[in-house]
Amino acid sequence: MKVISYAALKEKSQLERYEYDKPELKDNEVEVKITHCGICHSDIHLIDNDWGISKYPLIPGHEIIGIVENTGKNVKHLKKGMRVGIGWQADSCGYCEYCLSGQEQLCSRNQPTCIGRPGGFAHAIIVNSKFAIPLPDELESENAAPLLCAGITVYNPLRIYGVKPYMKVGVIGIGGLGHLALQFANAFGCEVTAFSSSKDKEEEAKKLGAHNFISLIDISEKELNRYKNYFDFLLSTVFVDLDWKLFVSLLKPNGRLNFVGAGGNINIPIPMLLNNKIISGSAIGSPGMIKEMFEFAARHQIKAKTELFPLEKVNEAIYKVKENRVRYRAVLKM
Amino acid sequence: MKVISYAALKEKSQLERYEYDKPELKDNEVEVKITHCGICHSDIHLIDNDWGISKYPLIPGHEIIGIVENTGKNVKHLKKGMRVGIGWQADSCGYCEYCLSGQEQLCSRNQPTCIGRPGGFAHAIIVNSKFAIPLPDELESENAAPLLCAGITVYNPLRIYGVKPYMKVGVIGIGGLGHLALQFANAFGCEVTAFSSSKDKEEEAKKLGAHNFISLIDISEKELNRYKNYFDFLLSTVFVDLDWKLFVSLLKPNGRLNFVGAGGNINIPIPMLLNNKIISGSAIGSPGMIKEMFEFAARHQIKAKTELFPLEKVNEAIYKVKENRVRYRAVLKM
Repeated sequence: MKVISYAALKEKSQLERYEYDKPELKDNEVEVKITHCGICHSDIHLIDNDWGISKYPLIPGHEIIGIVENTGKNVKHLKKGMRVGIGWQADSCGYCEYCLSGQEQLCSRNQPTCIGRPGGFAHAIIVNSKFAIPLPDELESENAAPLLCAGITVYNPLRIYGVKPYMKVGVIGIGGLGHLALQFANAFGCEVTAFSSSKDKEEEAKKLGAHNFISLIDISEKELNRYKNYFDFLLSTVFVDLDWKLFVSLLKPNGRLNFVGAGGNINIPIPMLLNNKIISGSAIGSPGMIKEMFEFAARHQIKAKTELFPLEKVNEAIYKVKENRVRYRAVLKM
Repeated sequence: MKVISYAALKEKSQLERYEYDKPELKDNEVEVKITHCGICHSDIHLIDNDWGISKYPLIPGHEIIGIVENTGKNVKHLKKGMRVGIGWQADSCGYCEYCLSGQEQLCSRNQPTCIGRPGGFAHAIIVNSKFAIPLPDELESENAAPLLCAGITVYNPLRIYGVKPYMKVGVIGIGGLGHLALQFANAFGCEVTAFSSSKDKEEEAKKLGAHNFISLIDISEKELNRYKNYFDFLLSTVFVDLDWKLFVSLLKPNGRLNFVGAGGNINIPIPMLLNNKIISGSAIGSPGMIKEMFEFAARHQIKAKTELFPLEKVNEAIYKVKENRVRYRAVLKM
């Protein structure tokens, strides 16, 4: 049996229709018929081999929603016909301290869904059944697909780093990740501030849950002074270097600046941190955290704003993502 | 009444015998007859006005042990004759969120003991009674004095940042602070590694509680590779810039590099943090935390290694501290 997909045959190329032999299903695996797949900026980094870790032919796609088609003989918790989501991670060792403590994303032998194995810009995928998370009925597939990477990437740090309802949270960058972070932080009960370089996003940011909006373009010294020592938690979703010293100065004592974007550099005088200020990073989240996020998103009606493209128009969709013209996530439909 | 002290009359000067009028005791204050006072590196920074915050005449000293001499009329928990310790902080506003939550050291109106008020290189001191912490009988004054700054500065981050008995802790810099950090981390039940640029400190570091010793001078690539992704908690007590990227690479996922030294800069590629790695800072600790530390130190026989000087020989003592010839803390006796 062949799987129809779209793949980059070499670095920085357009995607082409590409068929590959469906591998045999192992005992702990599940085969999923893909219905939707979001396009994440990291798919584009992988196509372009920006991180030097890509393997070709490369089939991108790690914000996958689909229907269980087949289950390996040891899989008990998934049945044919169930709807599941699959994210950045397709497998892990299963036996290290991180796997054994429900932090599979930290496993040093974790397997990304679309590096060295076929990803979700395709009609089917086979993964370790632990990494195919059942979707609550309330979530629509198109809006839920981006939760699998953009969503969990912003939900996870709110959870593991202890964001509480009485806290003041700032989200830096209002794109695919940021527009979900605004919704999650608002649903957590926090006061939410959006930082964006696109002034035209203010109205929508407020609809998404922001109480305050700060333009990164024409921000005034006076406005910033209002926010000195203000934030308990700042979440940076951007891939570019901003003035991080400035953002650290906006943190309260005990406040945290957390990065989820895989780029840039931070350069800070150490005395700026001595008031119990914290800088950290995080990436994606465990299967258990994705399950929790799904339930939370269903209860709070959190959904990605999406623009739908048929799989065959994947190159057009990627072009629009690169041009920053999608509000806020492109999703492919198979 | 006059108080006899030793003061710097101007920046970078030797200390001179200096008498000042004892201020009137306020209702919430306590007057303490000083018996011992440690010499901290920050006293020298204050004398030299390295941080631009010094006021002259400057009476240094903030690792104070003494006997309660008088209590203001609202002071109920201290009585004449009780032995107390006073550290870097002499007062705070009392009403902000930090004061009200037992984190007085984070109060933006906190008053350092020897900036704009007379410090502990003297025969007496008056402070808000909240900041004079009763000393358990088991602690000897000479060895306990350095707990008031060096001790709490390393105890506090172990506590507030959740160091647990099963963790691997590294202490960077084995001086006044570091030699106490080794003892505390060992008593916490941790596996403890000392990092030092003085190879001759290995034997003593191990007596103080280190299980491993790593020389920062002739460290080999191979030895370091053994420690990649190894530490849950690294505590830097140094004031100089080391290769912080290297130390971040020694952290496990979820690991933390915490700074307590008021100098230097940290410059890190953000992708190095995405495995839930954390960089933070902290300074001193609250009165409540000092009280807890005293009890813990008494139970575990934790004490500073000290060299005693009479108050009159303060300049000689400071000279030896500057030359890095004191093992590990100079203490003045009044």
